[in-house]
Amino acid sequence: MNQKPFQDYYPDHMAHCYGCGRLNELGHQIKSNWDGNESVCYFDPKPHHTAIPGYVYGGLLASLIDCHGTGTAAAAAYRDAGRSMDTEPALRFLTGSLHIDYLKPTPMGVTLEIRGKVKEVKGRKVVIEEWILANGMVTVRGEVVAVQVPEKLVRELLENAGN
Amino acid sequence: MNQKPFQDYYPDHMAHCYGCGRLNELGHQIKSNWDGNESVCYFDPKPHHTAIPGYVYGGLLASLIDCHGTGTAAAAAYRDAGRSMDTEPALRFLTGSLHIDYLKPTPMGVTLEIRGKVKEVKGRKVVIEEWILANGMVTVRGEVVAVQVPEKLVRELLENAGN
Repeated sequence: MNQKPFQDYYPDHMAHCYGCGRLNELGHQIKSNWDGNESVCYFDPKPHHTAIPGYVYGGLLASLIDCHGTGTAAAAAYRDAGRSMDTEPALRFLTGSLHIDYLKPTPMGVTLEIRGKVKEVKGRKVVIEEWILANGMVTVRGEVVAVQVPEKLVRELLENAGN
Repeated sequence: MNQKPFQDYYPDHMAHCYGCGRLNELGHQIKSNWDGNESVCYFDPKPHHTAIPGYVYGGLLASLIDCHGTGTAAAAAYRDAGRSMDTEPALRFLTGSLHIDYLKPTPMGVTLEIRGKVKEVKGRKVVIEEWILANGMVTVRGEVVAVQVPEKLVRELLENAGN
């Protein structure tokens, strides 16, 4: 299946995120896609993303869970509505809360696989459960509560920040 | 009080962390100190640490909570033992779990204040509660469960990773 990643549908003003914005040249620029009922994203940590030498920094792993989670929440909302992600009105999600369990050290030098699926939808909140695999082994479990934010509120936030 | 930050006591093999390692030239190099019964750390996000333009990326905020939390756990363990952080045997902590609540968007362009205190000690686990202030307003609350790891296990992990 030839998919366009979730993040490539984000409009320009939502595409500067350090974790997932395609317009953030210094960011991680993660790309997430559907794989059946789960979403998946692959990421190669850079050598400086170290915890103790040889293992991946927990803050980076939290970041991957965060952005892959909000991306999955948005994609799921469009999918449930039977709509393409480039149709209006926009369905935007920000992170309400983030929980990470570090099950074992995540080794450096392998491509990480971040997987997610919708656990629960509660009004404007979507709970995404996620896990990270290294060499096929789950090293991290995470959960994101993503909150749908009206486009009007996004515009107000941007204006308040002088954009 | 003229304090040496917690992280400056970490031995070299624990000082490469992207969040708090003084030897990671590309990392955040956070510095935490005691302020009475609380710990405090200040951080200036870089312009590319963006969520939506004008606001700080949640993954960075999670990273600050993470590393300030493990640092506070280590410092508290030494303090409770009445020992300086450069004495042996070493008391090392890694992150077992991390929880972040994003209460409101965190504005860019101001120095962030990350504060923490010990909430609970359960055997080898220390729970640190934390909060981040921007312009004196709490924008993020977090909790880290830091787990004390024997120096022997740290050495084994390093050896397994080829160090």
